[in-house]
Amino acid sequence: MNTPEPNQLHNGTLEVRVRYNECDPMGVAHHSRYPVWFEMGRTELLRATGWTYRQFEEEGVFLAVIDLAVKYRKPARYDDLLTLHTYVEGGSRVKIKHRYELMCGEALLATGRSTLACLARGGAVRRIPDLLMKIIGEAESVENS
Amino acid sequence: MNTPEPNQLHNGTLEVRVRYNECDPMGVAHHSRYPVWFEMGRTELLRATGWTYRQFEEEGVFLAVIDLAVKYRKPARYDDLLTLHTYVEGGSRVKIKHRYELMCGEALLATGRSTLACLARGGAVRRIPDLLMKIIGEAESVENS
Amino acid sequence: MNTPEPNQLHNGTLEVRVRYNECDPMGVAHHSRYPVWFEMGRTELLRATGWTYRQFEEEGVFLAVIDLAVKYRKPARYDDLLTLHTYVEGGSRVKIKHRYELMCGEALLATGRSTLACLARGGAVRRIPDLLMKIIGEAESVENS
Amino acid sequence: MNTPEPNQLHNGTLEVRVRYNECDPMGVAHHSRYPVWFEMGRTELLRATGWTYRQFEEEGVFLAVIDLAVKYRKPARYDDLLTLHTYVEGGSRVKIKHRYELMCGEALLATGRSTLACLARGGAVRRIPDLLMKIIGEAESVENS
Repeated sequence: MNTPEPNQLHNGTLEVRVRYNECDPMGVAHHSRYPVWFEMGRTELLRATGWTYRQFEEEGVFLAVIDLAVKYRKPARYDDLLTLHTYVEGGSRVKIKHRYELMCGEALLATGRSTLACLARGGAVRRIPDLLMKIIGEAESVENS
Repeated sequence: MNTPEPNQLHNGTLEVRVRYNECDPMGVAHHSRYPVWFEMGRTELLRATGWTYRQFEEEGVFLAVIDLAVKYRKPARYDDLLTLHTYVEGGSRVKIKHRYELMCGEALLATGRSTLACLARGGAVRRIPDLLMKIIGEAESVENS
Repeated sequence: MNTPEPNQLHNGTLEVRVRYNECDPMGVAHHSRYPVWFEMGRTELLRATGWTYRQFEEEGVFLAVIDLAVKYRKPARYDDLLTLHTYVEGGSRVKIKHRYELMCGEALLATGRSTLACLARGGAVRRIPDLLMKIIGEAESVENS
Repeated sequence: MNTPEPNQLHNGTLEVRVRYNECDPMGVAHHSRYPVWFEMGRTELLRATGWTYRQFEEEGVFLAVIDLAVKYRKPARYDDLLTLHTYVEGGSRVKIKHRYELMCGEALLATGRSTLACLARGGAVRRIPDLLMKIIGEAESVENS
């Protein structure tokens, strides 16, 4: 895969400071916090397009995680300032796939992938709004080029 | 529904095991977890009356915490099995007051107090349902006797 | 310590009540809570052998999650009483693999897998204590039989 | 009390974005998150002095919350960008008191107070390091002027 242009639609960068309560008796960030940071990455990635998840929810569009995978390579510690890179990797009429890289300085701490399903209020699967389809389409054409 | 015995209306006992992710680098339960346990205590206290918060919410009755105070005396540790005592202390047409005692064996770890406001869907203050009023009324007559 | 029956070594069952604060604006348990429940499942699975993670940690043996995968099939709701089945699936001299099934009544809500690495205080990889090796060995012989 | 000078030692300002997982089925930030934000406020307040809690912990100085009080006035919602003001209010040789104001734009969402005790590794009470004493002393002289 060629390196894509730094397109605001395809990837986003978020800085996150590790909170004290996110760390466990081993003195490192608990593994359950990484999905929370990934979700923040998705929130900021969408915001960069000029829309927000909150707006989607207000219009009855919900995005639910249906699968998640994380590989933990190095621990994150209290007060570390982390950088999360979030990428759209593709999807379908009803799903979106993301990929994540969590860094501390030059060190790669963790990688992850997730799939979101698009739901209507009440939980029925629904088509992804055209705006998000456009983002997915552009991500796929980069992947395939 | 038959009226339960008064002691079930006024206080409830909950056992809670301290989770690994609830503990911080000091090796003890983080102070932000106690309000979560108190909420569980309220949930179980109400269940003992034959009703559940979930039922209330389904009928558009929401209870929001408007003040909270906690005194932390001794730490709770990972895997400790704690006992939480929850009491209704009184209230008004729109508020309920609770008091909490968190024990580990014979040791008193923490005490707390909270006030809940009764809200309608959307957030407007509303009258507390009669069932809860009855609980409050009985608690007050015990306090005042 | 007497050797427990093999079935206690290989899988464990945990009941967990969905807490209010674990649910998000969609009204369902947030996906980041499932890894927390899985960890509770591992804690109880080990307890069934007569040992606890807390004892291991006190002796300088730490188990860190190095990969995690979850498939979310149906949502869990506030106050649902869930049943989590946790299985040891194998491992090596320094790793343990688990598998999880989260049920609500007869409904399968989610499945998961994780790998733990065994670490010494300070974070260096170390051999898994013999007791855990024994559990892994028995799990593998069941898988392969 | 006169308005103090905007002294980095006495008060600090933190912006915090409300995370999706911090919101509950009422669609607002769960009340147990506020103590987490207050702790972040203390972390940033100390950083403004040129020191960090992490450094203190590495030198065996721990600060444990021994009491906490919060008044919740208006809800915080998903994706709101909040501003937290944290103040040192005084203390003693072994305790520090803080006060908090949480804003969303011009709206005051919540206020809080906490007391921290200074502990050595293992949990025994110990004298507060001179650096922190200096901060407390300056805060008290402002309060008393």
